[in-house]
Amino acid sequence: MNIKIRNLVNALSKLPSLGPSSSRRITIHLLQNKEKIMLPVVSSMLELANQVIKCDICGNLDLQSPCAICTDPKRDCKLLCIVEELGDLWALEKGNIYSGLYHILGGRLSAINGVGPQELNLDTVRKRVVNLHIQEIIIAISPTLEGQVTLQYIIELLKDLNIQITRLACGIPMGGEIDYLDEGTLKAALTSRQSIK
Amino acid sequence: MNIKIRNLVNALSKLPSLGPSSSRRITIHLLQNKEKIMLPVVSSMLELANQVIKCDICGNLDLQSPCAICTDPKRDCKLLCIVEELGDLWALEKGNIYSGLYHILGGRLSAINGVGPQELNLDTVRKRVVNLHIQEIIIAISPTLEGQVTLQYIIELLKDLNIQITRLACGIPMGGEIDYLDEGTLKAALTSRQSIK
Repeated sequence: MNIKIRNLVNALSKLPSLGPSSSRRITIHLLQNKEKIMLPVVSSMLELANQVIKCDICGNLDLQSPCAICTDPKRDCKLLCIVEELGDLWALEKGNIYSGLYHILGGRLSAINGVGPQELNLDTVRKRVVNLHIQEIIIAISPTLEGQVTLQYIIELLKDLNIQITRLACGIPMGGEIDYLDEGTLKAALTSRQSIK
Repeated sequence: MNIKIRNLVNALSKLPSLGPSSSRRITIHLLQNKEKIMLPVVSSMLELANQVIKCDICGNLDLQSPCAICTDPKRDCKLLCIVEELGDLWALEKGNIYSGLYHILGGRLSAINGVGPQELNLDTVRKRVVNLHIQEIIIAISPTLEGQVTLQYIIELLKDLNIQITRLACGIPMGGEIDYLDEGTLKAALTSRQSIK
């Protein structure tokens, strides 16, 4: 394989979800469809590389700052959802199930990985809550050990403000089968059981 | 999600091995690492889009035609391996197990998909065999139904030439477990059993 082609395979294989075999398949597909696929992908990437910026307010990526979500008058600006990463924001937006504002932390607290509060987009949360007169904070952080620590930290940070703080419910995922679930999830589902009658 | 970002996600999701979720993850990774990852990938693709051409002789993709394999004096030019696609050539080259020349058909005969002999890179095979004084043709075509038809067609095409025609051995894949294999593979493995003493 030519060294330049190999370089592309190697670069692609370092992207998330891809390994050596899938990168080779993708490279072949791109090289065999230069005009129809590779060049459009290239121009799309190039355009985004020049135009995408981080929203100064929430940390979202968009072609403008403040981003389209932060400036959308139709969104409920009394509601602030705190997420770890951009992917979480996209996941919530995809479902079209939430209409408030977002705040992207950029990770979660982790003693092992040396991520402290100053590494995260935490110092502006309090200011935003006060300035925007936020009434409810929804903490949408994955319920892992580090996620729990981060959640506790945020609760501590905001506890003197008179706002409601909620978190996403833990329980059985829709379509999940009970005998395949771990104890922790089952315990959470049992503890938060809901009356149906 | 911004429409231009969504366009990139959609374009990536149509590449082999990728779906909507992995394309979103890759897009986020690219956008968050514009300088270190996205721009190098873009320039690599752009360079290849301008430089990669199809080898007139074997059908390989390279920055030159005839390609590096066809012009390599160290390769055994009495040996010609016929493969379906570029990916098969790469797979054989990766293993560093074959040192002859290649011929890429560009597919396999398929009545259902309307692929006849004229759709494949077949007409030059005979000329190459005669002109290069090839002594052995190795047919490295996947042993599917359509692969078998293609193999028979090539045998028919070359039968009057005084050359050896071989095919890759069928049998148990290395590391494969016998009770997971299909009957066809087991039958091939049994029929081609080899003496070990």
